[in-house]
Amino acid sequence: MNYRMIFQILGKVLCTIAAVLLLPALVCLIYRESPFPFLIVAVIMGACGAGFLLFKPKLTKIYAAEGFVVVGLSWILLSLFGALPFVLSGDIPNYIDAVFETVSGFTTTGASNVPDIEAMGRGVIFWRSFTHFLGGMGVLVFILAVLPMSGSRSIHIMRAEVPGPIVGKLVPSARKTAILLYAIYIAMTLLEAILLLCGGMSLFDALVHAFGTAGTGGFSSRALSIGYYDSAYIDTVVTVFMILFGVNFNLYYLVLLGKGLEALKSEELRWFLGIILFSAVTIALNLGDTYGGFFHNLRYTFFQVGSIISTTGFGTADFSLWPTYSRFLLVALMFLGACAGSTGGGLKVSRIIIVGKAIRLELRRQLKPHSVSIERLEGKPITETTIHSTLVFFSCYFFLLALGTALVSLDGFDITSTFTSVVSCLSNIGPGLDMVGPMGSFVMFSPLSKIVLTLCMLLGRLEIFPILMLFSPTTWKK
Amino acid sequence: MNYRMIFQILGKVLCTIAAVLLLPALVCLIYRESPFPFLIVAVIMGACGAGFLLFKPKLTKIYAAEGFVVVGLSWILLSLFGALPFVLSGDIPNYIDAVFETVSGFTTTGASNVPDIEAMGRGVIFWRSFTHFLGGMGVLVFILAVLPMSGSRSIHIMRAEVPGPIVGKLVPSARKTAILLYAIYIAMTLLEAILLLCGGMSLFDALVHAFGTAGTGGFSSRALSIGYYDSAYIDTVVTVFMILFGVNFNLYYLVLLGKGLEALKSEELRWFLGIILFSAVTIALNLGDTYGGFFHNLRYTFFQVGSIISTTGFGTADFSLWPTYSRFLLVALMFLGACAGSTGGGLKVSRIIIVGKAIRLELRRQLKPHSVSIERLEGKPITETTIHSTLVFFSCYFFLLALGTALVSLDGFDITSTFTSVVSCLSNIGPGLDMVGPMGSFVMFSPLSKIVLTLCMLLGRLEIFPILMLFSPTTWKK
Repeated sequence: MNYRMIFQILGKVLCTIAAVLLLPALVCLIYRESPFPFLIVAVIMGACGAGFLLFKPKLTKIYAAEGFVVVGLSWILLSLFGALPFVLSGDIPNYIDAVFETVSGFTTTGASNVPDIEAMGRGVIFWRSFTHFLGGMGVLVFILAVLPMSGSRSIHIMRAEVPGPIVGKLVPSARKTAILLYAIYIAMTLLEAILLLCGGMSLFDALVHAFGTAGTGGFSSRALSIGYYDSAYIDTVVTVFMILFGVNFNLYYLVLLGKGLEALKSEELRWFLGIILFSAVTIALNLGDTYGGFFHNLRYTFFQVGSIISTTGFGTADFSLWPTYSRFLLVALMFLGACAGSTGGGLKVSRIIIVGKAIRLELRRQLKPHSVSIERLEGKPITETTIHSTLVFFSCYFFLLALGTALVSLDGFDITSTFTSVVSCLSNIGPGLDMVGPMGSFVMFSPLSKIVLTLCMLLGRLEIFPILMLFSPTTWKK
Repeated sequence: MNYRMIFQILGKVLCTIAAVLLLPALVCLIYRESPFPFLIVAVIMGACGAGFLLFKPKLTKIYAAEGFVVVGLSWILLSLFGALPFVLSGDIPNYIDAVFETVSGFTTTGASNVPDIEAMGRGVIFWRSFTHFLGGMGVLVFILAVLPMSGSRSIHIMRAEVPGPIVGKLVPSARKTAILLYAIYIAMTLLEAILLLCGGMSLFDALVHAFGTAGTGGFSSRALSIGYYDSAYIDTVVTVFMILFGVNFNLYYLVLLGKGLEALKSEELRWFLGIILFSAVTIALNLGDTYGGFFHNLRYTFFQVGSIISTTGFGTADFSLWPTYSRFLLVALMFLGACAGSTGGGLKVSRIIIVGKAIRLELRRQLKPHSVSIERLEGKPITETTIHSTLVFFSCYFFLLALGTALVSLDGFDITSTFTSVVSCLSNIGPGLDMVGPMGSFVMFSPLSKIVLTLCMLLGRLEIFPILMLFSPTTWKK
């Protein structure tokens, strides 16, 4: 393990994010709030970061193990530091609650344990939503984009942070890939903010909701979320962008290269859009006359399906009150999640496709043990290793779900709320059903449950392994 | 595909089970009920079976594909025929309901859709419980034990019917293995019946409950299940035998060979017993003063944990009313199930061990992509193929669970009842939570849901592949 190099990267992460904290401090100044909660934390983080930078690496080479460790540690450190402004500003006095909220932000979960959001300071609300923006595309990817990291083989870091079963570079250099990803990401976020401004949102609200959509996070500056605006235009803009941010960003790169048609042929995209269509339509049928008939229902079902499958978690309706089929399908979409290489969470559509193909291969193998056959994804053969990792990831997810639910169930809340709170955190959605439904919150959970749910959010966002590896003896063995 | 050989085996199955139907007919005579429902069906089944036997096979060799197909088709045919006595006797007039009850019997699920069990005829109750006994160790294993099948490589049939990730023969001959398994099985069942007789049960009830325990089925002749007797002695006997029938029968063979100590070293056995102990103790703590304090709780928690983990489903308490942790843990045990090579259902303890080890291997592989490491189960290295099949099975189980729940949710019952009804059927337990809890029943479901749940029971008992393969084009391709 190249410890010096790990310290070096952690130092860069802390210093960069310390600088980023000046942004909410500026928002505070604009709204005549005290910027000190942010400035103090920026100074502490900067100092710690500078301390880490003192460890000069002898070798700059890193391997997969360092990639995982650096990503896992960065996220934990950022969450612990990032929570301090909430505590110092007095908006979330309890540190565990503040860490919950911060991790919920960075991991783009959007589960909130703040009793009254609209009572919080503007600077704090901005920071809370800005963590969605940073965490969505990835903090380390951001660092890669803004700082040069020569010879460090930073693809290992990207691979550990970018979600999906197969992570590749768009262009030969990892750094240029990071810059390209962030450029597309920022452009799309700004476009959404402008469209929301056109719909009558204030600049502040437009930015907050654009950050929330971009990271597929779901934090809102309003207690009623997007439902507050009750505008078909805003619902439509947000629905479209939630779905767009749930798509693999590699496809947007193809569009930039003028290969838009090729992008439309993506197997994962077709499944993703197909599932959205199927779900929104069948739920609209299932809802009967709830919102005035099938066609009127579609406005709410497309929004809610887009919100859940992209793992954003914005709400315009209380789907906790919908019929059983609708609620169950939304929970199933929570497991599923968005496309690989997007800012969304969950198991990812491409993983489900791979598992489906693995089942087909296994049926064939059991029938004809000596035959060899291959399955393809996006035209390329899926390797044994990819299938295997995907299956293990899938199993791991359910183990963690069971463990998390067992621990949260000690609080004694009803079984649907308990179970969906864990699913929601593990898949980085935000809302679950019943007590944690779109109109509910995570306030009532015990500190133990909040710690468990916080860990679930981290495990979900980083796709389990970087966090698990921090606790595995193999990682630290010489 | 060796069709003639498939017909040949199906013929033997139908004729043998037709003969077995004389047993409930005899019970009818003893209780002065009409034996005709059974006799008529016996004649029809015998005639069909004889018809199938007319196809003389040219080659007796069969392969994995034939093994799966013959097991899948046998179970479906037996369920369709086995349901007829319920309809003819008038005890379950609706054929779909009767098939549900029969499949619930053969698959040792024990989920009932009879409104008033105690109102049914004795012969029918006997048949209902006897299907547990036949299905527990396996119908095809029974046929292998009673009829010679020369040259047919019957290990493929055993492998398709006996549950677990790795199925081997106890002795070199598959037939002798089948005889041995049934001998142990019958001896243990008789021993339990005698012990229940000593506890004051009538001979009829003792047999019914011994069949229900042996197959880990759970059908009772009493509406209150084992709770009817309210006897600590009977609770203890049934608890012990439920756990014993949840153990891999290979271990009893080791005991017969005088290698009892070796049997006790089984990794799966230790996990199985450890999980039972952990669950019963923590649930007893969670129950507080429900049954008069921790030590009094243990009588009910050991019974219920044993009943669920062995996938029997007998009840002495309404665990639907227990606190969230207790209920959740019982649902988790429903997924887990008993040991491989036992009469129990669920995912099986050894599969969970294998998945756990696969996760450990994957962590190591991701950290050090070029290292090779091996995990062992019961001292033997686990092959790549076994790990892979286990992971695929695990994923397949969750896919089917999601699909089943989506279909049953169309009935619009609450989400906990809907979800646990599917889990319960897929793992062959019997009761779920709330409406399908220990004091509930499956009466209220629509015909569509009953068909879905019936399929889930078959998929669960035969461990998915033999049923899936019947629907796969690869199976029928030349």
